[in-house]
Amino acid sequence: MTAKNAFYAQSGGVTAVINASACGVIETARQHTDKIANLYAGRNGIIGALTEDLIDTGKESSEAIAALKYTPSGAFGSCRHKLKSLEANKREYERLIEVFKAHDIGYFFYNGGGDSADTCYKVSQLSEKMGFPVQAVHIPKTVDNDLPITDNCPGFGSVAKYIAVSTLEASFDVRSMAKTSTKIFVIEVMGRHAGWIAAAGGLVEDRDIPVVVLFPEVAFDQERFLAVVKARVDAHGFCTIVVSEGCHWPDGKFLAEQGSRDAFGHAQLGGAAPVVANMINQAHGYKYHWAVADYLQRAARHLVSASDVQQAYALGKAGVELALAGHNAIMPTVVRKSSSPYVWEIGKAPLSDVANVEKMMPEAFITADGFGITAQCKEYLYPLIEGEDYPPYRDGMPDYVTLQNVAVAKLLPGFEL
Amino acid sequence: MTAKNAFYAQSGGVTAVINASACGVIETARQHTDKIANLYAGRNGIIGALTEDLIDTGKESSEAIAALKYTPSGAFGSCRHKLKSLEANKREYERLIEVFKAHDIGYFFYNGGGDSADTCYKVSQLSEKMGFPVQAVHIPKTVDNDLPITDNCPGFGSVAKYIAVSTLEASFDVRSMAKTSTKIFVIEVMGRHAGWIAAAGGLVEDRDIPVVVLFPEVAFDQERFLAVVKARVDAHGFCTIVVSEGCHWPDGKFLAEQGSRDAFGHAQLGGAAPVVANMINQAHGYKYHWAVADYLQRAARHLVSASDVQQAYALGKAGVELALAGHNAIMPTVVRKSSSPYVWEIGKAPLSDVANVEKMMPEAFITADGFGITAQCKEYLYPLIEGEDYPPYRDGMPDYVTLQNVAVAKLLPGFEL
Repeated sequence: MTAKNAFYAQSGGVTAVINASACGVIETARQHTDKIANLYAGRNGIIGALTEDLIDTGKESSEAIAALKYTPSGAFGSCRHKLKSLEANKREYERLIEVFKAHDIGYFFYNGGGDSADTCYKVSQLSEKMGFPVQAVHIPKTVDNDLPITDNCPGFGSVAKYIAVSTLEASFDVRSMAKTSTKIFVIEVMGRHAGWIAAAGGLVEDRDIPVVVLFPEVAFDQERFLAVVKARVDAHGFCTIVVSEGCHWPDGKFLAEQGSRDAFGHAQLGGAAPVVANMINQAHGYKYHWAVADYLQRAARHLVSASDVQQAYALGKAGVELALAGHNAIMPTVVRKSSSPYVWEIGKAPLSDVANVEKMMPEAFITADGFGITAQCKEYLYPLIEGEDYPPYRDGMPDYVTLQNVAVAKLLPGFEL
Repeated sequence: MTAKNAFYAQSGGVTAVINASACGVIETARQHTDKIANLYAGRNGIIGALTEDLIDTGKESSEAIAALKYTPSGAFGSCRHKLKSLEANKREYERLIEVFKAHDIGYFFYNGGGDSADTCYKVSQLSEKMGFPVQAVHIPKTVDNDLPITDNCPGFGSVAKYIAVSTLEASFDVRSMAKTSTKIFVIEVMGRHAGWIAAAGGLVEDRDIPVVVLFPEVAFDQERFLAVVKARVDAHGFCTIVVSEGCHWPDGKFLAEQGSRDAFGHAQLGGAAPVVANMINQAHGYKYHWAVADYLQRAARHLVSASDVQQAYALGKAGVELALAGHNAIMPTVVRKSSSPYVWEIGKAPLSDVANVEKMMPEAFITADGFGITAQCKEYLYPLIEGEDYPPYRDGMPDYVTLQNVAVAKLLPGFEL
């Protein structure tokens, strides 16, 4: 078998550990130069493939590649460019194959969420039809934790740890101040459709923090919510609220869209957190503070879970190994063997079973009152936030790497996106 | 000399390291039982003294006290109860002395910011006049970093580190996404009057991040700001903005108050961050994300600076030692001997020089264009964010301590606040 080149791209919102997967892919590829000659990365994700803007990862030192394991964000750039259906956008798919052909690419490693799993699957199918078969492997990544089959998705565990720890710390703060000042702390977390991340905030209950979680899965019931908050404050002197950005009214409208207008009359300035905090203040008069974590939660490499980093790396490595073993249209997965102690291994799933399937949070993970998480949910979450894995520091800040990202010479005419 | 009891209280907004000062006070007092018999803490700060709600710290194990060094928030509760002038509020001052007398308290350790330094000074003066002299020592604490004489205040260094690291991480994220998605990231930080915390965000410039800092010291110039942001995006593809909550228009009105109204017509729902982000979007059309760190920044014990923890502990310890050496109406300080390498020692300042003096950020710390920090400012900041000091973890979250806080029997009639 002659060595072929490989293509790797990062897709969609980046995470604290997606570069750990890149590290796993590149380090493993470098161990198999008999089969993988060069590993090219797409600059800004799949756009880099479409525009033939390829990065030669071979120009990076082994130290720089190793540093990816502790560097958050997408080292080669990512993008939010979704390839449509084959019928609607055959031109882009065909261009991908042309670029792969021009650069003798036999392996396609695509690191992303649900949409990219679908793209990956289609590339595999189309390349075969077009007579230039490419082995397509999807490497899972998403803080939303919504990919099927795999027990969890790299990126989620670290966000979950960040939210659990931040909620705990801010709750300790409020508890100190509650006698004369702040009684309510509201933290807004990511998750437009699924409450996985919000659920992680619910773990602080196990540290004696009175907490109310607002999930996107549960229509917001203002009256019941306000009553529960009051009961918590009456009993504990304070209350913490974890609100998902996707929390919505019974009619489906997001809380964050609650008619907030700035001086220019522009809608939706604020998030869900200030809406919730203000609502409590109006009803009960409690002084409040609120935070919106936004990108901080998914970029926080300084506070990742060790199990998340290990899995992100292992899935990148497994992706390359699956390709070398001849697999195609496949995704390596995390298989949980035991929660306590936490034991997991790498499995695999055909992309035909992954593409276009969204894994929602089980109903059994949310308490009957809709404001908290069950023991079953905690059993699922704890292993995912297990362990610490700190980056090295220089001058008080993490010593993250920025790659050189040297371009590969173009061989084809330009392409308009 | 007969042993007396001591009183310790935490005041105002708590920090990630105020308990490290408490640890320094308590551990040092425990080494001098010949002079300090019992150390009582005020439950919820000075209110605990006024209402005779005292906590017997002697009931806590040495392990629990040692754990304070890595536990954020105020372990005994704090409060925002400011004692007014002696004339306006003699009743409360006299009550303090009565409680101290009833519990044979000869040492008053007050751990707080500018207001508490003033209170501490007055207690010292009045107790002497009332014939029950109490040695009053103020232990500095404030994330605002605005106490005079001391080179810096415990609590600030850790917030500075949190903001520098969080800004760096989120900037890496935006840089990855900028090609097709988010080009602007805005992070709002604490600091109503002084830009010390915002300045820390400016350090990411040294990691090649295009950053604009909005200080409360500089009246907001919308036109120039929007032009600078556009220039940064043109040059780098993205831009990070660190906005102080105290950022204001030339007429003094806070950006955060910019007429935001919720569906009920209530003003000031959002913070400064969404206002700034929206303004940029309106002018240039850039997609944005914003975060409001709020309590997360001052509670983040998981990401403190080692030098901050060391100083917080050392100042608590020094406070007790100063009292035992006979000092009164005094505050231990941090004296910087050298920035690189960072060398500091403990000094002291009479409270008469500390009370009612606010240290502002020097003009020379802000760049001429008003949007960044100077080399001089960086030289000041770097030592304060130096070093890491991680708490122990249990089940994926820090293993912070919650004390028993056993009450001391009351000896006096009740007191209405």
